[in-house]
Amino acid sequence: MENDADGVMQQTIRVDLVPDFRSARNVEAGCAVVIDVLRATSVMVTACHHGATRIWTCGEVDAARHLAAAAQPTRLLCGERHCRPIEGFTLGNSPSEYGPSVVGGRELVLTTTNGTRAIESVASARRLVVASFLNLSATVQTLIAEPNVHVVCAGTDGEVSYEDVLLAGAITARLRQHRADARIDDSARIAQSAWQAVLDHGVSSAGGLHSTEALAGALQQSLGGRNLIRAGYQQDILRCAQLDAFGQVVERGPDPVGGFVLSADSAR
Amino acid sequence: MENDADGVMQQTIRVDLVPDFRSARNVEAGCAVVIDVLRATSVMVTACHHGATRIWTCGEVDAARHLAAAAQPTRLLCGERHCRPIEGFTLGNSPSEYGPSVVGGRELVLTTTNGTRAIESVASARRLVVASFLNLSATVQTLIAEPNVHVVCAGTDGEVSYEDVLLAGAITARLRQHRADARIDDSARIAQSAWQAVLDHGVSSAGGLHSTEALAGALQQSLGGRNLIRAGYQQDILRCAQLDAFGQVVERGPDPVGGFVLSADSAR
Repeated sequence: MENDADGVMQQTIRVDLVPDFRSARNVEAGCAVVIDVLRATSVMVTACHHGATRIWTCGEVDAARHLAAAAQPTRLLCGERHCRPIEGFTLGNSPSEYGPSVVGGRELVLTTTNGTRAIESVASARRLVVASFLNLSATVQTLIAEPNVHVVCAGTDGEVSYEDVLLAGAITARLRQHRADARIDDSARIAQSAWQAVLDHGVSSAGGLHSTEALAGALQQSLGGRNLIRAGYQQDILRCAQLDAFGQVVERGPDPVGGFVLSADSAR
Repeated sequence: MENDADGVMQQTIRVDLVPDFRSARNVEAGCAVVIDVLRATSVMVTACHHGATRIWTCGEVDAARHLAAAAQPTRLLCGERHCRPIEGFTLGNSPSEYGPSVVGGRELVLTTTNGTRAIESVASARRLVVASFLNLSATVQTLIAEPNVHVVCAGTDGEVSYEDVLLAGAITARLRQHRADARIDDSARIAQSAWQAVLDHGVSSAGGLHSTEALAGALQQSLGGRNLIRAGYQQDILRCAQLDAFGQVVERGPDPVGGFVLSADSAR
């Protein structure tokens, strides 16, 4: 590792285009950034913005029920399987359900198809952040000082998801604006190219549209986007494409007992 | 599946950014295209251009020795482990070794670290082609009529390799020029973005350089490129970046007994 002119350690940025379950990824000393743009991490960021006090993420539906019932007052049961709400759960996986009157002051238990597994793949990380386009700038701001950034795209059932790779590319591009000498791996370089192509071609071809619509247009082309449209959640793509709508960083809190605990922390 | 105006079946293009060993990939009915730009598939294309009659690819060193010794006259033993020649083998994995006086009229047995595994991951494909930048146009030409194209990037020890993804993106972009309605998966879209970024930024930033140097500049940034430079094979990056130097399609022949048999077939 080299130091830059300020004596600050050179930043390393790695991207997993899908979670890697083969082996421990030497992420212990690093800061993991988990991305599931459509929709798990966008929902988590929305819920924290609207006053949820904690989100416990959970891999299995039964474990989520247990985790919700174990507390008084009970935590809100939230999540989806294959884009659809789960029977008996209070909330599904649409950001539109996570308004302040519903989640304000409440703890949530969330289980989703891909996002939860992605979080578990980097559970050993020193620091764990979840990111979305909704809080891109706040997330980048908190990552600037991290020497080792390890971005994990949740993907869709083990397949690469374009929408997650776009956000990984946006984070990489923004970090490199701050730290031009950052070392990036091949996947980060590829992700940045995908994001640059949206900036170069996607946005300009959208003409005078507001950037939310331009970004939503790119997200609609993705596997996750097409799945959402098929399930009737097209509006959620627009909701998840609102660049920097919120200013919170969402990261794992200091007491991860019995599941992942994430707490909102205003970065600015 | 939809048909286009000519009644031709719509083309589907899928990309594995690294080989997927988890499961059968439903590639039986399709045409698999295996890419290991630095250097296995570039070596195979070079050898076929210079008159090698067959290349048997083989996963293990001992199996390669057996396969070479079993024939009279013996086949040439070729390959590498971690970029380096293998003890007792006639040729390593540098295209510079595969001149006409060495390989003309000969059968080769080749074993490499990543390329062979990638070929094995799609062994069940109806048709199996190996591609390089050296024969990009010939490869694309033969793929135009294929309804299902499944591109597999060999990667490096399970990691995504930028150089392989660039070629996957170039193939995707060229095919979409011929078949604008082609259905592409998210990985193909991402690969095409990476290639487009080289065309937009890499080539222009290289100023007046010939395109071989510009492409080599991009390949040098990759994991595979850095590994080659470290091992003293920087010149091989230039050799593998000679766009369309050769006109042969290299694909598995009709008699794959005891290993993969690839035969050169002039496409133009």
